[in-house]
Amino acid sequence: MRPGSTDEVSRVLAECHATGQPVVLFGGLTGLVRGSVAGEHEIALSLERMHRIESIDPVGRTMTVEAGVAVQRIQEEAEKHGLLYPVDFGARGSAHIGGSAATNAGGNGVIRYGMTRDSVLGLEAVLADGTVIPALNRMIKNNAAYDVKQLFIGSEGTLGVITRLVLRLRESPRSTQSALVACPTFAAVSRFLKHIDGSLGGSLSAFELMWNEFYRMVTTPPSKGTPPLPQTHDYYVAGRKHRRRPDAGPGAIRGSHCRRNRGGTRRRRRSVFVRGPAGGVVGAARRRRGDLPLGMPVAFDVSLPLAEMEGYVTDVVERLEREWPVYRRFVFGHLGDGNLHIIAAGPPSAEARHGIERCVYEPLAARGDPSRPSMASASRSNHGSTCAAARRKLALMQKLKQALDPKGILNPGRVLPG
Amino acid sequence: MRPGSTDEVSRVLAECHATGQPVVLFGGLTGLVRGSVAGEHEIALSLERMHRIESIDPVGRTMTVEAGVAVQRIQEEAEKHGLLYPVDFGARGSAHIGGSAATNAGGNGVIRYGMTRDSVLGLEAVLADGTVIPALNRMIKNNAAYDVKQLFIGSEGTLGVITRLVLRLRESPRSTQSALVACPTFAAVSRFLKHIDGSLGGSLSAFELMWNEFYRMVTTPPSKGTPPLPQTHDYYVAGRKHRRRPDAGPGAIRGSHCRRNRGGTRRRRRSVFVRGPAGGVVGAARRRRGDLPLGMPVAFDVSLPLAEMEGYVTDVVERLEREWPVYRRFVFGHLGDGNLHIIAAGPPSAEARHGIERCVYEPLAARGDPSRPSMASASRSNHGSTCAAARRKLALMQKLKQALDPKGILNPGRVLPG
Repeated sequence: MRPGSTDEVSRVLAECHATGQPVVLFGGLTGLVRGSVAGEHEIALSLERMHRIESIDPVGRTMTVEAGVAVQRIQEEAEKHGLLYPVDFGARGSAHIGGSAATNAGGNGVIRYGMTRDSVLGLEAVLADGTVIPALNRMIKNNAAYDVKQLFIGSEGTLGVITRLVLRLRESPRSTQSALVACPTFAAVSRFLKHIDGSLGGSLSAFELMWNEFYRMVTTPPSKGTPPLPQTHDYYVAGRKHRRRPDAGPGAIRGSHCRRNRGGTRRRRRSVFVRGPAGGVVGAARRRRGDLPLGMPVAFDVSLPLAEMEGYVTDVVERLEREWPVYRRFVFGHLGDGNLHIIAAGPPSAEARHGIERCVYEPLAARGDPSRPSMASASRSNHGSTCAAARRKLALMQKLKQALDPKGILNPGRVLPG
Repeated sequence: MRPGSTDEVSRVLAECHATGQPVVLFGGLTGLVRGSVAGEHEIALSLERMHRIESIDPVGRTMTVEAGVAVQRIQEEAEKHGLLYPVDFGARGSAHIGGSAATNAGGNGVIRYGMTRDSVLGLEAVLADGTVIPALNRMIKNNAAYDVKQLFIGSEGTLGVITRLVLRLRESPRSTQSALVACPTFAAVSRFLKHIDGSLGGSLSAFELMWNEFYRMVTTPPSKGTPPLPQTHDYYVAGRKHRRRPDAGPGAIRGSHCRRNRGGTRRRRRSVFVRGPAGGVVGAARRRRGDLPLGMPVAFDVSLPLAEMEGYVTDVVERLEREWPVYRRFVFGHLGDGNLHIIAAGPPSAEARHGIERCVYEPLAARGDPSRPSMASASRSNHGSTCAAARRKLALMQKLKQALDPKGILNPGRVLPG
């Protein structure tokens, strides 16, 4: 179904609700966890025809859009008014803003601007029974009763269909500076983050960490990059900061831990370039597997506290090395928000996929409290903790699902067990 | 009831749930909308004995606390580790962190750090039936299933009792600079905000607007201030920015619209001073009415888009002038997030209170969509819009309330109609 308006979404859902017809939501189809694959008895509801940018308010710095607008179009429209829509990730060109909100996407700028949740001021959603919920708030602070939009952000379409959004825009930075820094140990990376975050205040907008294998991949043919720094270090940090003044040639992120970026514009481009493929490699590998020497990629999106990151990655990499030595392993992450991407790539095999999933998830589940494991939702049910705390939390989620979608027609089996 | 642990909160609530006993939650009792006043058949549940700071993680930059810890203690504890808990408002000394989260308090730093919601990484809450929901996440990004903590933030204790929290800390700014700027028109204020937000990037941390009457009050005896700028301007902006380097004497917020702050430290203190009483005046007026020449203060907390603010305030002030000329009117606000405080003060009278509420709310309801009016919850029911959209939104909130607190024992009649 390809509804062209909120009203049509409402009519489709009312009909599906009446007949108990399961519905799978389609946004830009850039997700990697197989959330948007319609099963045999499911119909797909695509918002691709709802792609209007409705209005922009340059004074209040808001934009009102339909859910099917691509993230990149929103960024470009904001730019025309000297403004910035700050949520940015590799799939920007095709990912829909509705899907970005439904999955609460993060990306490159989280350390400065937060997740999609932090850029959504208001939204309109349609409940499973077709009821339209208008919550098109335009203000940063609005504490009038419950902030119901929070229900729909991050719940991956299981509680309602997001149809329109009011986005928060920011003033564009005058210019940006980037630096690529090699670090000998994880402890040095961690100290560097603390140092640079304190000294740059709010202007640090990215702090991306590449483990050696990943850095080598994106700076070795057939990747287009050449290595701006030798490929022999254990860790590489790509940092970006906003500048107050227009770009005026050479500049550096200051800091005693930091190898100065002396090359000015040319060096800056090269270091930004290094990061470019990092954001896009997952999507690129998925869509055009032939382009990269990856074979079947199994991609993970994992969050954990900084203090546990080094040990966790070491465990996973050692285990993958031992159990699936044929598969290449790549690790990179948005360190500012504790978000890691792990990719294993090699010959296609369902057995390998499941084995690799165990290698990634089991060390995660072993670390800390049962309410914490953050993993790709498609595989979560395989690893559900059985302890009482997790059960109570799941029961609360099911209560919410029951209250909003009593027949369970929206994205059944996604996020929550079917 | 004064439980001393989550387990005791759980047992109290389970008992109340079994018998249908209504419960009113008490935090630091600094709210101004009479949300924490127990009625005749209600019992008060105070979290004042749950005031432990449990742990601080300087690397992950988090702090885990019980809900009854005062906001100021959290700020001070963070400072000891060179970190910052950025949510700050006048009542910091007595307001509990649990209440700050339950009301999603904003305050002076919203423009830079967001609301309390943005500083809460995780929380533990007890549902009406005594079920403990553990959601003590410690990461900025955690998209594992529903982010259930969002339910409890901003719902003012009607969906559950927040018992413990994991807070996000930031790196402390090396130093701050403040400036006081007089503006001739609201349009100039608006342009100044846009200019300074763009040029300072992420380092602008406050942008407070005082209307003339408010500025005169806080710079005239018996207030302790003397006016750093003449009292003849229509608008005064108090701006604050973070500096990258330790304080080194004279400095200024740059910008062509800006009257330079040339006095260095002394001038800086004076302009900060001007803001000091602004945050505290409401609480001070409430607790020690004799100290300020306010009589009965009727205080409002209203949000609206920047573009509508000038017209709205003009309408309200004119109407108050016409209908309640004896009452003094003071307006100030956190402009970065569109949040206004309006105070009318004069002889105590229930009739005047209701009349003044109408003067403030009716022009608000007249502006824009029915899902938007953000008003003190205590008075919301008087002005509920009857249109279909607002009814659907209210029905959704009631569904949530019904799912989580089916007997309606938690803060009955607050936020939602009883």
